[in-house]
Amino acid sequence: MPNIIHKVGIKSSSMDDVYQALTTQAGLAGWWTSNVRGEGTQIGNIIEFRFGAGGFDMKVVDLKKPTFVRWEVVAGPEEWVGTTIEFELKQDGEYTIVLFKHLNWKEPIEFMHHCSTKWAIFLMSLKSLLESGQGNPDPHDIKIDNWN
Amino acid sequence: MPNIIHKVGIKSSSMDDVYQALTTQAGLAGWWTSNVRGEGTQIGNIIEFRFGAGGFDMKVVDLKKPTFVRWEVVAGPEEWVGTTIEFELKQDGEYTIVLFKHLNWKEPIEFMHHCSTKWAIFLMSLKSLLESGQGNPDPHDIKIDNWN
Repeated sequence: MPNIIHKVGIKSSSMDDVYQALTTQAGLAGWWTSNVRGEGTQIGNIIEFRFGAGGFDMKVVDLKKPTFVRWEVVAGPEEWVGTTIEFELKQDGEYTIVLFKHLNWKEPIEFMHHCSTKWAIFLMSLKSLLESGQGNPDPHDIKIDNWN
Repeated sequence: MPNIIHKVGIKSSSMDDVYQALTTQAGLAGWWTSNVRGEGTQIGNIIEFRFGAGGFDMKVVDLKKPTFVRWEVVAGPEEWVGTTIEFELKQDGEYTIVLFKHLNWKEPIEFMHHCSTKWAIFLMSLKSLLESGQGNPDPHDIKIDNWN
């Protein structure tokens, strides 16, 4: 099945810092969307992400602190429901490396092209949050196309 | 086989303008890498893209002016050789939409994760070039990780 994959390297941050930004309400609100409810700190948690145009509910299905986070999409656009999102962290010199995967799309539709680019933009927002203290979460995210 | 896909929407530019930026030496030098030799205006042309760390030679294998460009990678890192790169253009209201594909990777290795994010950054550079007159081609590109 088609997958989205990305990589960013974050300077001057420990794996613990990055893991916090991927699992706490405050962290997630700092780079993906300002409108987050819930925490991703325990397996089984539901995190509600809301954007202008809708949103996603993620169930935390795996955690290995501070190296791995896996969510399953349990509500949202039908193309997303049942897909899986993973963040794998590792240290490489002065960088914390994030290997990102959004797995198991049914078809490589135009919306998947959009989401792939948009994930890159949000992962750069995560990098910026940790390196400079300032991310660009929705609604202050960088726009990429006619779907935002 | 694993594929990279992306989408950007470019405002205030015609499909012809975007097609020029994808096929002429001056256009390509404005968003991907300053060091380009050759033109992509004819099927069969070879375009040589060079970066600090190496480069790629692309053979133009299909063109449909102003809606489609396909290159085959004929020299460069072994993971790239034999892969195919496509740009599909269409108009949607005030946007020229670019659907991008880098097809037929052998394996979803870490380098593919890196290239996926980096393609997003360069496609945003293409958008910026056309919307503002200023792109961010190598060596002025935005760095994403320990591999640049």
